[in-house]
Order: sequence, then structure tokens, then C-alpha cells
Amino acid sequence: MSNGGLRQFSHRLHVATRGKGLYEITGEIASWLSGQSVRSGLLTAFVQHTSASLTIQENADPDVIADLNTFFSRLVPEDNRLYRHTVEGPDDMPAHIRAALTLTQLSIPIEQGRMALGTWQGIYLFEHRSSPHRRSVVLHLLGE
Amino acid sequence: MSNGGLRQFSHRLHVATRGKGLYEITGEIASWLSGQSVRSGLLTAFVQHTSASLTIQENADPDVIADLNTFFSRLVPEDNRLYRHTVEGPDDMPAHIRAALTLTQLSIPIEQGRMALGTWQGIYLFEHRSSPHRRSVVLHLLGE
Amino acid sequence: MSNGGLRQFSHRLHVATRGKGLYEITGEIASWLSGQSVRSGLLTAFVQHTSASLTIQENADPDVIADLNTFFSRLVPEDNRLYRHTVEGPDDMPAHIRAALTLTQLSIPIEQGRMALGTWQGIYLFEHRSSPHRRSVVLHLLGE
Repeated sequence: MSNGGLRQFSHRLHVATRGKGLYEITGEIASWLSGQSVRSGLLTAFVQHTSASLTIQENADPDVIADLNTFFSRLVPEDNRLYRHTVEGPDDMPAHIRAALTLTQLSIPIEQGRMALGTWQGIYLFEHRSSPHRRSVVLHLLGE
Repeated sequence: MSNGGLRQFSHRLHVATRGKGLYEITGEIASWLSGQSVRSGLLTAFVQHTSASLTIQENADPDVIADLNTFFSRLVPEDNRLYRHTVEGPDDMPAHIRAALTLTQLSIPIEQGRMALGTWQGIYLFEHRSSPHRRSVVLHLLGE
Repeated sequence: MSNGGLRQFSHRLHVATRGKGLYEITGEIASWLSGQSVRSGLLTAFVQHTSASLTIQENADPDVIADLNTFFSRLVPEDNRLYRHTVEGPDDMPAHIRAALTLTQLSIPIEQGRMALGTWQGIYLFEHRSSPHRRSVVLHLLGE
């Protein structure tokens, strides 16, 4: 497929969140990628938080990401009696658990200058806290 | 360990599934890898779907992967009253949730021309839909 | 960000565990990394087991990792009536499930010679068995 010429690129993405739920970042990543002139390679996204995470989900029906958020709220209840770590509010320890159940990092192959996502795949930042946050995602690209 | 000579390779793996459960793909990946003449590197597998995923599990006792599938069926019930996204059947939204709880992508170091898997580790495509599907897994290899 | 000069390095980390819970390995990884003279790149950690896993969590309040372990014990009960795979003890099948719900592999961008971790992020080996084990984590570094 290639020989030599591999280079690295990096970028910091900032995502403003407004409470628990999934925020699609496919477009922002694709936009940055399109400026790097890389035809094939590997793109890694890494979220620098322990109460937000990453996931790839269907981006066709918005009910899917609403149901996903609801499932995690039911699976990891906000109930201080269940946790010792309660000083940062009832949503903080559940946020850490939700993050541990999903992904801190995602790597996606690049083909013909684009992420090799399936037809319905979107990349989401998964916010697990109730109040607004500014989340930081490191993008690292290795390719040629 | 090395200097220079890094190259990239990619491949598409197709997996025919017959309902929920784990389908081992270690052999297919190893077979493709063995044709690339790469001694050390990093192999990434990326599944292009949101209702199938990847996992590494024990490949010694088949009861392990049966129990794993059963656990996920209990954890994420097929019950339309729990979900808004029901138009694609009672198994579709649970499939998305099961995928979010496992892995869309896996990267495995390559040493001496082979994946650095532990003794009992097998790589599985985890099918979350009830009916047969043809699943696509992108393999990306970076190495020398 | 760079052109050429990419090199690979690898290392094996051994972690002695003493029962279920999270064992921080951030320091060991950082220490090995600091000896490789790599300014930018991608570091991959891969655990060679199916009853231990990796996770990134808050390393400020030790109650967080205690609560995380407790949550997983409640989510995946040690109850032989739930599983077919029981020959290796009541904690073995739950260990496989806990591993499937977390991470076998983590990749972290390297910037200015250091892992691009967020302020409170620590890397943990998550032990899912009750008795002591010696766990093996493969580190792979690609960078320049």
C-alpha cells in the first residue's frame, strides 16, 4: 500500500457540552483531516477527561442516541447511597463509571483521504455530567 | 527496536454472522498478517457497524463466549417499552447499546511477525442482531 | 508536525495484583517512555489477559477507583447459577465479562515527550480475579 513518507499531525478539538448526552464530532474531525493531505493512515481521538468519553453510534435516527443516554442513566443510577465518592455531586461518580463502560480513545483507519467509517457511523463525545463543560479531544494522525 | 522502513497495509475482512453471539476472527487476521512480511508494528481492526462490535476473549472454553452473550442479553433486554427507537425491530436498539458497551476498534502490537496476544486470547466479532448479517472489518497495519 | 524519522519501540510491563481492583501504572509507563527520546507519537498499551483489563480513571480521590470496582462487582455478580463456565471458580466468568465491558487496549498520543493525559487521568490495570496474579502489558511506541 505504501513505502516511506509517513508523517504525524496533531490537533486539539474543543467540545462545548450542555448536560448528559451524545454530541456528534464527526464533522469537526473530518474537517481537520481534510486539511492534512493524508491519503492513508490512522487517526486517533483521545478524550482528556474521566467523566466524558467517546463512542461510535448510528447517526441516522436521533432516538438512538437518546435511548443510549437513557440506558446509561438507568444502568448507573445517581444514588449517593451507592457510592463513597459523593463530594463532587450525585452525577460525578456515575459519570466516571459511564466513562469506564465506554471509550476514552478511538483509532480509525484513513483510506483515500477519509475516515473508513461505515455508512451510519458517527463519532460522538459522550458527556456524563449534568452541567455544561468544555471538553478537550486530542487528535493524532499518522499517515502519508 | 527499529529505524525507518515503516510501511502501511490495509485489508477488508468480511464476516458472515448467524444471529447474536461471538465469531472468532483471530485466524483470518493472522492469515492476512502473515502475508505482509511485517516483523514489528501495530495492527488495528475497526468494525464498520453500530450493531456489531469487537472483543478479545478466552478462546479455550466455548462456554465463556456463550455466557458472555447471555450476560449482554440480560443486561440489555429486548423490551420495546424501554426504547424510543423501535422501528428496526426489538433487537436493534439493544444491539446499539451492546456495541457501545464493547469495542468498535482494537489495536494489537505486532512482535516477530505475530500479534502479541496472550495465550488464551482470541479476537471476536460480536454480533448483536438476531438475523444473519455480513459484517465488514477494516484491518490497518503499520510496521516494518 | 513532522516528516520522517519515525521509529518503533516496545516493552513488557509486569504488574503484580492482589485481588480485584485498579492498580495504577501511569508512573511505570511514563518512566519507560521518558527513556525513549520520542517527542511526538502514539503509545499503545495492550493487556495480554482476558480476566484483567485497562481503564483510564481519576487518580485524585481513591474513593473513585473503589466505587468503580464495587459497581462492577454488583453489575456482574459472582453467582454460579448464572453461568455455564464455572470450572475455574465463581470469580472467573464474571472476570471475563468485566474485561469485555472495559478495555483490552489503550492508545495515547505523545506530545512534547509526554503522554497527552488530562490533569486527573491515570492509567490503571483493572484486575478482575480474586487471587494474586502477575499481569503482562505490552507497550508499543511509534514516534520520533
